[in-house]
Amino acid sequence: MKLILVGASGTIGQHVADALSHHEIIKASRSHGDVKVDINTSSSIKSLFEEVGPVDGVVSMAGGAPMKPFAELTEVEMMEGFRNKLMGQLNLVLIGQHYVNDGGNFSLVSGILSQEPIKNGAVLTTVNGAINAFTISAARELLPRGIRVNTISPALVEDSVEALGAYFPGQPIASMEAVARAFVKSVEGIGTGEIIPVIH
Amino acid sequence: MKLILVGASGTIGQHVADALSHHEIIKASRSHGDVKVDINTSSSIKSLFEEVGPVDGVVSMAGGAPMKPFAELTEVEMMEGFRNKLMGQLNLVLIGQHYVNDGGNFSLVSGILSQEPIKNGAVLTTVNGAINAFTISAARELLPRGIRVNTISPALVEDSVEALGAYFPGQPIASMEAVARAFVKSVEGIGTGEIIPVIH
Repeated sequence: MKLILVGASGTIGQHVADALSHHEIIKASRSHGDVKVDINTSSSIKSLFEEVGPVDGVVSMAGGAPMKPFAELTEVEMMEGFRNKLMGQLNLVLIGQHYVNDGGNFSLVSGILSQEPIKNGAVLTTVNGAINAFTISAARELLPRGIRVNTISPALVEDSVEALGAYFPGQPIASMEAVARAFVKSVEGIGTGEIIPVIH
Repeated sequence: MKLILVGASGTIGQHVADALSHHEIIKASRSHGDVKVDINTSSSIKSLFEEVGPVDGVVSMAGGAPMKPFAELTEVEMMEGFRNKLMGQLNLVLIGQHYVNDGGNFSLVSGILSQEPIKNGAVLTTVNGAINAFTISAARELLPRGIRVNTISPALVEDSVEALGAYFPGQPIASMEAVARAFVKSVEGIGTGEIIPVIH
């Protein structure tokens, strides 16, 4: 398959790129990779697809959202998360549907915070819940074209434990290998509308 | 309890206002009610709370989102839904937390589309999923102050069947009485972080 990998240079992206290396891979990210893309703007996403042309699949491991104490949280941080991790990934599907071949696939990333909130993490919980919900809708809407849409929802990943472990007290840790395998399942499997948890 | 009801003149709002009429009720909506509020803007929400002062609870039955064929859907409609039904209600909590008494409560509204997508309904599915996820995070963050946060997730409501029934083929119909009772449970019960389904 010809696949665009968005966020291929990130913590998760490098492992997923390795696991999918038997495909024709185009790596896209903000500052590295074969093609540059800023998922904050729909025009940049449109340029990406215009440049790369028709593909069989789009794999997103991109997007962040701010952490903030709840008592100080405002719509500024919330909208920042909506714009980046949420709308950025939704735009990969909404714009990408016009460039992905029939029978193709989309793989997005959400995260365990959708069900397991942590202190100061309300933006990420909200954004991840939105991505999961969008997935089940987009999957059904794209059924007539045989296009599948899944979202991988990992726990705190192994490679982030040193930096972020303290924010996830007692929560499970997902191995990088298991996360990469979940993306492979989404791309090469037959499921659609699946929220694929990775919790070990 | 002193309660602000946002969207009190809407399809659901009138029934909820009746069911909560034994409380001190302040009705807020865009064009009717005791106080005007436009949930699209945080400044209007802030004005509402400044005008009404400290309250024991905030009950929201407000917010809409556009329907659109998936192949034509863009970030314009998605952001419109984020701004209104999603960010509008989140702002009621984020701003309202500074005006709600300790031990108070918030009740928001999402809807069955979070789990049961319909054709052209991807914005509402995404928005409802985000509201549900926010609820579990906000509830935990506000525990130290004893403030509860719940979200009522109704199926297609009885009073909307004539206008909207064709969009919900074969889906369950929630009675107005059952929807109003779910709001009463949220306001007067002891639960928090609950997504309360109303499917009959």
